[in-house]
Amino acid sequence: MSHPLRLGIAGLGTVGVGVLKIVEQHAERLAMRTGRTLQVTAVSARNRDKDRGVDLSGYAWEDDPVTLATRDDVDIYVELMGGSDGPAKASTEAALKAGKDVVTANKAMLAHHGQELAELAESNGCVIRFEAAVAGGIPCIKALTEGLAGNKITRVMGVMNGTCNYILTRMENAGLPYDEVFKEADALGYLEADPTLDVGGIDAGHKLSLLSSIAYGTQVDFDAVYLEGIERIKIEDIRHAAEMGYRIKLLGIAKMTKDGLSQSMAPCLVPANSPLGQLEGGTNMIVIEGDSVGQIVLRGAGAGEGPTASAVMGDVCDIARGIRLATFGQPAGTLVKSTSTISTAETPYYIRMDLLDKPGALAAVAKALGEESVSIDRMRQTSHSDDIAPVLIVTHATNWDALSRALETLPDTGFLQNQPVALRIEDV
Amino acid sequence: MSHPLRLGIAGLGTVGVGVLKIVEQHAERLAMRTGRTLQVTAVSARNRDKDRGVDLSGYAWEDDPVTLATRDDVDIYVELMGGSDGPAKASTEAALKAGKDVVTANKAMLAHHGQELAELAESNGCVIRFEAAVAGGIPCIKALTEGLAGNKITRVMGVMNGTCNYILTRMENAGLPYDEVFKEADALGYLEADPTLDVGGIDAGHKLSLLSSIAYGTQVDFDAVYLEGIERIKIEDIRHAAEMGYRIKLLGIAKMTKDGLSQSMAPCLVPANSPLGQLEGGTNMIVIEGDSVGQIVLRGAGAGEGPTASAVMGDVCDIARGIRLATFGQPAGTLVKSTSTISTAETPYYIRMDLLDKPGALAAVAKALGEESVSIDRMRQTSHSDDIAPVLIVTHATNWDALSRALETLPDTGFLQNQPVALRIEDV
Repeated sequence: MSHPLRLGIAGLGTVGVGVLKIVEQHAERLAMRTGRTLQVTAVSARNRDKDRGVDLSGYAWEDDPVTLATRDDVDIYVELMGGSDGPAKASTEAALKAGKDVVTANKAMLAHHGQELAELAESNGCVIRFEAAVAGGIPCIKALTEGLAGNKITRVMGVMNGTCNYILTRMENAGLPYDEVFKEADALGYLEADPTLDVGGIDAGHKLSLLSSIAYGTQVDFDAVYLEGIERIKIEDIRHAAEMGYRIKLLGIAKMTKDGLSQSMAPCLVPANSPLGQLEGGTNMIVIEGDSVGQIVLRGAGAGEGPTASAVMGDVCDIARGIRLATFGQPAGTLVKSTSTISTAETPYYIRMDLLDKPGALAAVAKALGEESVSIDRMRQTSHSDDIAPVLIVTHATNWDALSRALETLPDTGFLQNQPVALRIEDV
Repeated sequence: MSHPLRLGIAGLGTVGVGVLKIVEQHAERLAMRTGRTLQVTAVSARNRDKDRGVDLSGYAWEDDPVTLATRDDVDIYVELMGGSDGPAKASTEAALKAGKDVVTANKAMLAHHGQELAELAESNGCVIRFEAAVAGGIPCIKALTEGLAGNKITRVMGVMNGTCNYILTRMENAGLPYDEVFKEADALGYLEADPTLDVGGIDAGHKLSLLSSIAYGTQVDFDAVYLEGIERIKIEDIRHAAEMGYRIKLLGIAKMTKDGLSQSMAPCLVPANSPLGQLEGGTNMIVIEGDSVGQIVLRGAGAGEGPTASAVMGDVCDIARGIRLATFGQPAGTLVKSTSTISTAETPYYIRMDLLDKPGALAAVAKALGEESVSIDRMRQTSHSDDIAPVLIVTHATNWDALSRALETLPDTGFLQNQPVALRIEDV
């Protein structure tokens, strides 16, 4: 057994504390599995005096994560502070420049600076591992990078924000409107300090951009992710979807098309009897499709102390075992800058709109769609008591460009009460 | 980029051909991901002249897999012949002794000789990888060994034989009896030459014994797997189970109990709305539970050319990337010889029996169960037209020892028409 592998942990929220606990409680098991003794030598957090329920007296304390990251007695810098820039980025860069490997749960940092950090890691002979950044405890980065390395990946999908899935399934199961469930989620502490990160799809979009890079050998390109949140989903949408055999999920989809990489994180209708459709509450699911393997579905807790700490420790154990891979599965210099598109994927769409209940309204809408070659599969006007008529349309497969053009011209008919809701129907 | 990594493949059935295709068609992608050029240098199979739909002229041919395994121009010996002993074992041993790494899909060989082969690999500085041996394309060996290495594993479960799951779901969906669906499966080519391997649970038991070893750090002990096939499941069992909200699956369960390692591969009732309960047809599912991660569910194709070849190539890519792990996740010498038990896990049981329709029959059965402290939760006699009464019992949680003793004494009541069917109800 060689010398101990020494961890420095920055960020002692639930995940950091979870990692401390695993290293302490499973010392023997971890040594058996990795052939190395693992130990935490130093820690850093904003507040030294906070009671975290663990004894920190055995670890050196650093106020400054950059100092922690570059300590001589740290081999792996474990970055669990979060934030795309600031101390997280500064300390990660400092660690890499000092020749330390990095394990991080920071999706925002990698989504914005993944390419740059991957290059920095390589030029310093270090590795960056980030299993904990995507879908919590689910070893999906490992499955995609390693287990499925023999495949041309054809599609990656996922429900990667447990809060959104909680809100959507709670709306459905309790029959409550979005605003009310949002408040519940907030009271339960499920939401980020800036809730837009969750319900706006940004957090999940960060994760999707990391999966895309590995799957397609492209440079991380978060800015190219088409983002749409769940704020406009109404209980009626969930009910209409259910009647047609679908459920609504905030679904990430990454595909390589002839026009470039298509990445979208938006509410979609998926078949209710599919694994994605059956997903309840805060659970996450990653679906990976490859030319040889077909469809692989991975399901588990997407957040929380234990699951996220488990992912961090999986990465730490890999490094202890001598597993050293390129950050995104291939040398950073070989990752291509892909053009991006959301226009070519042809899928059916679900459209809901409120029309002024006047003669000719339905005909005008149908005409406007038809002029953009958006063909209607089903159309229904549901019963209503006032002078606003809720109208539901399911289109035949069409591309997003045509659909958006049609949606833009719809208000010109003069019959629309408000902007339509249009949701992609994804065959999963 | 270092010198090419050269594969020798023994066994050119669908999987071997699938591997040839991936190495040829994805040469560039594989080189990008692994940093090495992969090439097949030599192959071996029983029949040189068979048309396999691929051109073999570029590969050296060996009639004898042992010769293939020890060729100077082979770095990785890919064993895809199958069979627990014979040429598969001889050639694997020869490869390891010659310092070659081994990638195999052979669950039977590893279930019977895993410890011996792991020791041989280690003493020769070689690795044995076997992702393809368990659950086809699902990277479950990798998830368990690496991704979840930070966990104390608390339970491993799985539906690992697609043929059995096909038969059970087909019986349910088409309302057909076992014998008829068995014949269908045979005609479709779904069954092994010796169908007992499938329907008797042996093939799935092999797989479970490999997962157990990794999960609990124990020497592979296939003989300790409690095996029960699906041959005695009737369509009535499936219907009764459905009425109570369950489905019947050939389920592998491995747990470490205070009395030792409990491994069982037997038909079980699982909640219909759980991921395992929702599994249809030939798909496989592995469920891994750890103290930190909670429950991770992995789902995908358990067999077939593409999925199994994908798993083989995942292992090959790992070796190409320099990933070298102990066969069962920790040094072979540290794997303990666990005592085995199936007696201590307390679960409810479903029992179906045919009673002679005579006064006192039900009371006698209830008394016999009670004498072994098997307590009845629900009991039902279904309507019948002849003098045989089908009786259905769901017990409170009990252990297998008590239940088997009770089942043994039941015939003494003199009311039993035949041996009862008893199925574990597993909370998943």
